[in-house]
Amino acid sequence: MADQYAHSGDDKRPTEIPAIRWEEPPEGPVLVLLDQTRLPAEEVELVCTDASALVEAIRSLSVRGAPLLGIAGAYGVALAAMRGFDVDEAAAALAGARPTAVNLAVGVRRAHSAHDAALAKGGDVRQAAAAALAAARQLHREDAEASGRMAEHGLALLDELLPGGGHRVLTHCNTGSLVSGGEGTAFAVALAAHRTGRLRRLWVDETRPLLQGARLTAYEAARSGMAYTLLTDNAAGSLFAAGEVDAVLIGADRITADGSVANKVGSYPLAVLARYHHVPFIVVAPVTTVDLDTADGASVEVEQRPGHEVTEVTAPQVPVVGAEAGGGIPVAPLGTQAYNPAFDVTPAELVTAIVTEEGAVSPVTAEALAEMCARSRRVAAG
Amino acid sequence: MADQYAHSGDDKRPTEIPAIRWEEPPEGPVLVLLDQTRLPAEEVELVCTDASALVEAIRSLSVRGAPLLGIAGAYGVALAAMRGFDVDEAAAALAGARPTAVNLAVGVRRAHSAHDAALAKGGDVRQAAAAALAAARQLHREDAEASGRMAEHGLALLDELLPGGGHRVLTHCNTGSLVSGGEGTAFAVALAAHRTGRLRRLWVDETRPLLQGARLTAYEAARSGMAYTLLTDNAAGSLFAAGEVDAVLIGADRITADGSVANKVGSYPLAVLARYHHVPFIVVAPVTTVDLDTADGASVEVEQRPGHEVTEVTAPQVPVVGAEAGGGIPVAPLGTQAYNPAFDVTPAELVTAIVTEEGAVSPVTAEALAEMCARSRRVAAG
Repeated sequence: MADQYAHSGDDKRPTEIPAIRWEEPPEGPVLVLLDQTRLPAEEVELVCTDASALVEAIRSLSVRGAPLLGIAGAYGVALAAMRGFDVDEAAAALAGARPTAVNLAVGVRRAHSAHDAALAKGGDVRQAAAAALAAARQLHREDAEASGRMAEHGLALLDELLPGGGHRVLTHCNTGSLVSGGEGTAFAVALAAHRTGRLRRLWVDETRPLLQGARLTAYEAARSGMAYTLLTDNAAGSLFAAGEVDAVLIGADRITADGSVANKVGSYPLAVLARYHHVPFIVVAPVTTVDLDTADGASVEVEQRPGHEVTEVTAPQVPVVGAEAGGGIPVAPLGTQAYNPAFDVTPAELVTAIVTEEGAVSPVTAEALAEMCARSRRVAAG
Repeated sequence: MADQYAHSGDDKRPTEIPAIRWEEPPEGPVLVLLDQTRLPAEEVELVCTDASALVEAIRSLSVRGAPLLGIAGAYGVALAAMRGFDVDEAAAALAGARPTAVNLAVGVRRAHSAHDAALAKGGDVRQAAAAALAAARQLHREDAEASGRMAEHGLALLDELLPGGGHRVLTHCNTGSLVSGGEGTAFAVALAAHRTGRLRRLWVDETRPLLQGARLTAYEAARSGMAYTLLTDNAAGSLFAAGEVDAVLIGADRITADGSVANKVGSYPLAVLARYHHVPFIVVAPVTTVDLDTADGASVEVEQRPGHEVTEVTAPQVPVVGAEAGGGIPVAPLGTQAYNPAFDVTPAELVTAIVTEEGAVSPVTAEALAEMCARSRRVAAG
């Protein structure tokens, strides 16, 4: 189950609350999450004492973002093990909580494997649980380090593609410290550009239907002191047409063997606009996002989310009179059916580069991706 | 000033309330508008007794949509004249209420010219006011007839481009009877396809920031018994990629001499997507939308609207606790700057056809547009 602790809603200063942390109070270990559905209005923490509370937090998007989902999944396995729940069952439930995000399943598997390996070596359940936790912590650390390296590689690529500096970067959804053990993926690159005086402006797509851009990226940009401007997703076309976008930087939820990129819905239209306007379209994601077992974009299962996310608007901090199915304010006639894919898939030919902690792959080909993944595994094994 | 009369909000049946009507109660003439900012939750009428109330209704988008703005502007001049206000002043205020919509200025000019011509011929102020009203009524009638002809021409074009029938049409913003003296522009074509059994599905872009698609087009589609599905603007890319869109049908706020189309923000990205996927992109608008005095897209003044339309979400029927600048619910950090153009401009080379009451122009060239406008004027003069 999950408890909620609200921090002062009146305090408008940037939060120092991490997106995720493991704690071990006397009552037993817990996984504490910053509830991202309440930002930017309120900083509320969710305290998960079992895997099912975490599954619910993942489904409701209280915790979200590809890398962070992996870390959360790994901690979830450790939590189940430490609390004496059925670890196989917990792992299966966690891995299936959101189908498109490959990192979630990877993180779950990593802690699960560590747990089972400890048992196989003759360890007891306590040692196996400790092994799962150690694996989760290791993943958390690695992700923070990977963020730093992605930022470096991404900034080097930006400088190479746009030698003049003064970058005007468009981003979609949320890819900063709220999705990561570190400073994130695409956002971390923009942040590195900002810190070195090379970011002129961050254009922030609001990212309908759940407004992660407006609610979360704008929050992180404001907190970092960046020059940023929010826009509706459909206004990006006007910026491209006016020559106001130098590069698009986005994250990824899954990158298939052929270099297709599944990411938040709205990424693909940006890729088409970027191509039409000869603007670089750069994907920034950890190597774990690359899923060589999925051949191509057509093989990606795209999560379809409930229609009420589109037919209603929600603002959790506001008491809603006459709330409908999703607890929001209806903005369409009752009975309206909605098409609400969570992700879209951008084919490799529209992607200028994929940046991971291992470096930039450009042009994006199956061979180059496979080579990068092999190098990454050699480093991990070495 | 404007008074508000609310109709039963509980009655969920389709409204029969026209978008605009002229009335002459004993207290003096009034212009009655259906307040489109309250739909679909409530059917509320705004009763304007002077031009300044109408200017306010235009600015707040209570009345909107290119053809309807022209009709409203003409009635507004008549209202000022009948009520004894300064007609020149009223005309100037009305024409400038929204800068991008050419029909508004055209409608205002038409009633204003009729008024001044009556005075020049020696008529008194009462006769001049009657002439202005007659001009407004004539424009209203013509617009209704033009709707019918646009629907015919548009359907013929669809059948020519997509001989199989079973059209799956994507539309953006709202272009039906709420924007017209008749059944509208792009929506009227979809409606004609629906009535003749040739419409398989209408894909309705929600149209951020003001959600005219979700609030108004879905309302008109539901009322017409169409098969329709709502989507976030950024999900259109997924539909194109899946081959689920046979044609895009949109309206226009201004078409320049070179065939560039200014329309609701989000139209241009659809045009780029349509081109990339080899899908026809069809613009439906009355001839009055063509502005031969504006040379090209770059010369169009695009209205920039307040940032709070993006940083807050509004739902007028819901009492908002702690409302901010725009009276809505904040969804971005305080102080967030937003880029909020009301329109974008699609160049002629991305437009498959422009359909007016005079027929379809395809390919879209300056010569073909000029010829169509000349033909239209000859018909009007003959």
